[in-house]
Amino acid sequence: MRGALENIFVLDMTKVLAGPYCGAILADFGADVVKIEPPGAGDDARGFGPHQNGESLYYANLNRGKRGITLNLKSEGGREILLRLVEKADVLLESFRPGTMDRLGLGYEALRARNPRLIYGAVTGFGAGGPYSNRPGYDIIAQAMGGLMSITGQEGGPPTRSGNAMGDILGGMNLAIGVLAALRAREITGEGQYVDISLVDSVVASLEQAWQRYFATGEAPGRRGNSYDAIAPYDSFCAKDGHLVIGCGNQRLFETFCEKLLKRPELVSDGRFLTVPLRVKNNKALKEIVEAWLADRTVAEAVDAALAAGVPAAPILDMAQIAGDPHIAARGMFEDVEHPVAGRIRLNSSPIRLSETGARIRFPSPALGQHNAEILSELGYSNNDIARFRQEGAI
Amino acid sequence: MRGALENIFVLDMTKVLAGPYCGAILADFGADVVKIEPPGAGDDARGFGPHQNGESLYYANLNRGKRGITLNLKSEGGREILLRLVEKADVLLESFRPGTMDRLGLGYEALRARNPRLIYGAVTGFGAGGPYSNRPGYDIIAQAMGGLMSITGQEGGPPTRSGNAMGDILGGMNLAIGVLAALRAREITGEGQYVDISLVDSVVASLEQAWQRYFATGEAPGRRGNSYDAIAPYDSFCAKDGHLVIGCGNQRLFETFCEKLLKRPELVSDGRFLTVPLRVKNNKALKEIVEAWLADRTVAEAVDAALAAGVPAAPILDMAQIAGDPHIAARGMFEDVEHPVAGRIRLNSSPIRLSETGARIRFPSPALGQHNAEILSELGYSNNDIARFRQEGAI
Repeated sequence: MRGALENIFVLDMTKVLAGPYCGAILADFGADVVKIEPPGAGDDARGFGPHQNGESLYYANLNRGKRGITLNLKSEGGREILLRLVEKADVLLESFRPGTMDRLGLGYEALRARNPRLIYGAVTGFGAGGPYSNRPGYDIIAQAMGGLMSITGQEGGPPTRSGNAMGDILGGMNLAIGVLAALRAREITGEGQYVDISLVDSVVASLEQAWQRYFATGEAPGRRGNSYDAIAPYDSFCAKDGHLVIGCGNQRLFETFCEKLLKRPELVSDGRFLTVPLRVKNNKALKEIVEAWLADRTVAEAVDAALAAGVPAAPILDMAQIAGDPHIAARGMFEDVEHPVAGRIRLNSSPIRLSETGARIRFPSPALGQHNAEILSELGYSNNDIARFRQEGAI
Repeated sequence: MRGALENIFVLDMTKVLAGPYCGAILADFGADVVKIEPPGAGDDARGFGPHQNGESLYYANLNRGKRGITLNLKSEGGREILLRLVEKADVLLESFRPGTMDRLGLGYEALRARNPRLIYGAVTGFGAGGPYSNRPGYDIIAQAMGGLMSITGQEGGPPTRSGNAMGDILGGMNLAIGVLAALRAREITGEGQYVDISLVDSVVASLEQAWQRYFATGEAPGRRGNSYDAIAPYDSFCAKDGHLVIGCGNQRLFETFCEKLLKRPELVSDGRFLTVPLRVKNNKALKEIVEAWLADRTVAEAVDAALAAGVPAAPILDMAQIAGDPHIAARGMFEDVEHPVAGRIRLNSSPIRLSETGARIRFPSPALGQHNAEILSELGYSNNDIARFRQEGAI
């Protein structure tokens, strides 16, 4: 199967999560992605658990399908090699603090002078401009300063982060969208451009209608457990043996729910529940009615009954249950890869399914500097050059 | 400023959140996006609060920059108009349950026969295939069945959703990535393809390294408040007047933290804290040390001291604080738009910043059927045709 991004050459100088996640998306689509790491320790993520045979599976997942080289960008030789790579590259991804690449003589203007078609994608905590742009940014900083923690958690409970590194994931996905849009723009303009992604911006934008609610009312939305402020009943509910979720996303579903499940058709014309905004307002009364119905039903019974009636409902699954779920298996959400050091490992498949140029994991993540000689040869360097670069500590 | 997607014609038949979010991304990049809604009530989101002058701001944010028409796809005329639109379209977005478009005679194969260059993007709860593909899917279903709720929340507390509709946001972003990748692939193959995005898949993929942790250990990760299982100290901490976050993302930052802030350089060589995995393991002991240091410091004092030392730290902001923050203002994260019904409203700007073909809000969301006559004229229909379609209830 052909790749949507075949013939696209990407330099991935990013580390840990947001940038590498973007690089992995591009690699899964068939781009030739070269991961560039500092000699010695490499990407910080190589030190992050879980490890298997000393190999970080955290790193392995985010850097599959990439070739790897080491470059000491503080050395003359390292910069020379990078500039030669840039001449061939379609895309460069970096996640240094703003100004770092400039100080190395490798800022966007310098690279663009070498290759005006280069798309330069930067992902940072706070973005390339603005008063906090020099602050260090990590996922937890973005979740805290982007507002996500303020609206996640139980009512009356503490601010709570999303349990994954959601700021990084959103930032990496926005970087991928920006780079792909810039590739499209290059078809029109013939030139590359600068893509500026901030983790904080990415979290802020993800809060969607909560912003309109704040601007309309002047009140900052707070934490409200699993209920939603735009729709009800649409929440988690307590059944006989645990919790489940039910989502009546429109009026018809609410009517079906009352008539076929609760067997209380009079609720549809109950003044408290007539419209979506009224149901949101009287959410607690509604929740009590639903939980009274659930009191003598198990999660499985209630989910089955709801689905049979056409009402959206689901159990709350843990990761072991999901890993063993037949639907997830049928979707091919995980892929086994033979890694030369870690052995057989299971990685996350791309969730982006294209019928003709599908995403797939092409090969395992690189050892530190694994493709130094191969890639330097492709750039036209001789074996003697490569030996010299190695001796000088440039690679 | 030119748009990255100028000359791209998009039909957006989706409703509520995931699909419209994708359509808004494409519209902000300058694509000509036509929102297609059923006559009568239109998109369910028109009923979702907050409202201003009777206009849903929820809808207004997600459908800015789109022209709008109504089509009754159950009528002969509605289908005829859709097929004519498809002949001109680059991209069609839909979020019906799998099989719905086929039953209307408008499935992918039928549309492809009209226009082999069409990129058909479908976003559904469970995807186009797999045993649960016919189940109704909403954000809360995806957060529950994709595993996010199982790892979000306080230790010992209930499963907790991300406070925004994160399943929808991730699905909409994956749809945008898939469509843009397919546009790139079309440059190579000359043909469109089918893009299949599932909200559940999107949530599963977003959990990143937690999956490798599960596969390596056989233990499903649980809820752990604001701490992370790959790194420490990287958490929220209690100061004199509230909570803040601190993220020591690598060894050097941990050393700086101990030496310059805690003034306890001996912790760097403490056997409990020597490496990242050891610090994760002894996270609680470490947190006590950090909170002892914070006991007589305010959030503002601690954040200032940490940033001055180069250690990532941040206050946990609510949405009112963010809306008034000078950095967020400098980043231009909100944009005021004059809406013909709602009046002056504030919408979320695109977080994807391109230097040459930037994203921007081009015009306000459409009234239901606002561009019926305009778009039907563009398709070559006469005023008489349009009157007939209206009379027949096709539009």
